[in-house]
Amino acid sequence: MSKVTIYDISKKLNISAATVSRALNNNPKISPKTRELVLKTAAEMNYEQNTLALALKSGKSNTVGILVPYVDRNFFSSVIRGIEEELYPHGYHVIICQTRDDAQSEVQNINTLLNAQVDGIFMSVSKTTKDTSHIDRVLQKKIPLVFFDRKKNIPGVSSVTIDDLNGAYMSVEHLIRQGCKQIAHFMGDINLEIYKNRYNGYLKALTDYNLPFNKDYVIRTNSKAESGTAAVKKLMRLPSPPDAIFSSSDFTALGAIQELKKNGIRVPEDICISGFSNEPFTQYTDPTMTTVDQTPIKMGKMAAQVFLEQMGGEISVALEKKVVLSPQLVVRDSTNRSMG
Amino acid sequence: MSKVTIYDISKKLNISAATVSRALNNNPKISPKTRELVLKTAAEMNYEQNTLALALKSGKSNTVGILVPYVDRNFFSSVIRGIEEELYPHGYHVIICQTRDDAQSEVQNINTLLNAQVDGIFMSVSKTTKDTSHIDRVLQKKIPLVFFDRKKNIPGVSSVTIDDLNGAYMSVEHLIRQGCKQIAHFMGDINLEIYKNRYNGYLKALTDYNLPFNKDYVIRTNSKAESGTAAVKKLMRLPSPPDAIFSSSDFTALGAIQELKKNGIRVPEDICISGFSNEPFTQYTDPTMTTVDQTPIKMGKMAAQVFLEQMGGEISVALEKKVVLSPQLVVRDSTNRSMG
Repeated sequence: MSKVTIYDISKKLNISAATVSRALNNNPKISPKTRELVLKTAAEMNYEQNTLALALKSGKSNTVGILVPYVDRNFFSSVIRGIEEELYPHGYHVIICQTRDDAQSEVQNINTLLNAQVDGIFMSVSKTTKDTSHIDRVLQKKIPLVFFDRKKNIPGVSSVTIDDLNGAYMSVEHLIRQGCKQIAHFMGDINLEIYKNRYNGYLKALTDYNLPFNKDYVIRTNSKAESGTAAVKKLMRLPSPPDAIFSSSDFTALGAIQELKKNGIRVPEDICISGFSNEPFTQYTDPTMTTVDQTPIKMGKMAAQVFLEQMGGEISVALEKKVVLSPQLVVRDSTNRSMG
Repeated sequence: MSKVTIYDISKKLNISAATVSRALNNNPKISPKTRELVLKTAAEMNYEQNTLALALKSGKSNTVGILVPYVDRNFFSSVIRGIEEELYPHGYHVIICQTRDDAQSEVQNINTLLNAQVDGIFMSVSKTTKDTSHIDRVLQKKIPLVFFDRKKNIPGVSSVTIDDLNGAYMSVEHLIRQGCKQIAHFMGDINLEIYKNRYNGYLKALTDYNLPFNKDYVIRTNSKAESGTAAVKKLMRLPSPPDAIFSSSDFTALGAIQELKKNGIRVPEDICISGFSNEPFTQYTDPTMTTVDQTPIKMGKMAAQVFLEQMGGEISVALEKKVVLSPQLVVRDSTNRSMG
């Protein structure tokens, strides 16, 4: 598996590695005779000059890395698509790593991307990341870094996010307009800003419409279907169960709908449920699910544009941009009481 | 953006690049005084010795590349998961590229992975790939390559696939046992072996159960929901429409179910429909969808084991392994006539 390097060639010919390198790169300082000898020897030794070795010298690989918690969440794969579509015409290729929301894996993936000599990194932070020294390492190397969706507040780092507070607000406002008065919330991990903002949007809508806040109506969930099933069981055991649930995740909303159906509770007639993210399956559930679309392809394209701007400038990471996109409420049957 | 290299350090100190390299790598041939000078200068110049530069010398990066058509197809993301779970304890990290079934993008992604100095490549071939010179290039570099699911027949290359013919056969046999006699097939691109095998499994079941073959019942589809919608429209216009559809893809089966429901045709009472791949959404459709599970996590783990065996041997790519896994039929409501 050992690869032939310019050091091996220089040793064989008893000349310096720098001379070998110059010869391979057609540097005019090298005599035609030496160049020919180096090329012949390199070929004999099966030496392959790769783009990466050149990248190590030029500092440019035309590859960017994308770090996401899960590649198979539609939201993340759509952001990846947006980044790819925007960067492809500029000659950039994309490599992807997934952290599975594990902080340790995030650190290792950052190392992997740095070792692959990427020209830039797009990342959505893992749920469990507390320490940010791996991110500092990227910045020290002056490699442009753009956060999308889940970010840490680090000075000098650009980000593209959506207005989660407003997305949550629109969703709760819609539930109120359907006549719901006792609205519960499936809360995500509020260590992450996105979930904190969704919770704050929920609170703001209750306040603005003079609905009382009931702490028993706020259940901590982990964005898996089973977590939604457990949460809705808890709600239904309350003396006064809610007439609507605003969930911070489509998956927990799905678990809740399935559990309620199993118990003969009708959605939306008895209880309205809305999710968050517009995962493709939300179109196929029975009833179809109201949710918030986060315009992920647009988010990816914006993140790519921010990166390109940074690459274009002389001082690559000096410029800090905070782009905030507007989400869209997608109303479907799970909250639509005017249907029947 | 230009990175400091050992050439820059050697120039600054007026010593050879080889000496700089040896000093940085604690080679005992270098005097402590020189070593100290090199390290001090390297630190001043903000030089970062990276694992990749070491990899270029040692020929090992502990990174493997996975090439898939789409990261957001559950089947592929589950194979990725299987590979990651198996390789992680062995110290390997994974980078992922997607081709979106575009042959040109596949070639570029192979280059990107080679430039990232991966120790091995796992790939599922793009639908549009005809020429295989980019794959030959990987083999010439003696980098272990393992195909999974979609493969090309190249001597010396290992593969992990499922027995698609048998998966299709089980599915059609199940439809026959439900009383279906006029069974249609949504055929995928038969340039790909997997779809050819699914078609052959369909034919074999018809023959074994003495059912006539009707060429009007075989519709070419492209594994998108819209394609299934168009295909089922065509079938329903036939003088004698089918009483079952065996689809080579969950997505086309979904399109068909939606179109039939819109027209008041009942699934499974009027027509049974089965898909292929066990995408997660098949649990949430109404009715839930019968499909074939391809055991993708197992496939990933097997592919990783084949890679590890090849890395363990002295002559890394000499050994060719063809692993064929057995699929599993998952019976749900879309074919279950005993329900009502």
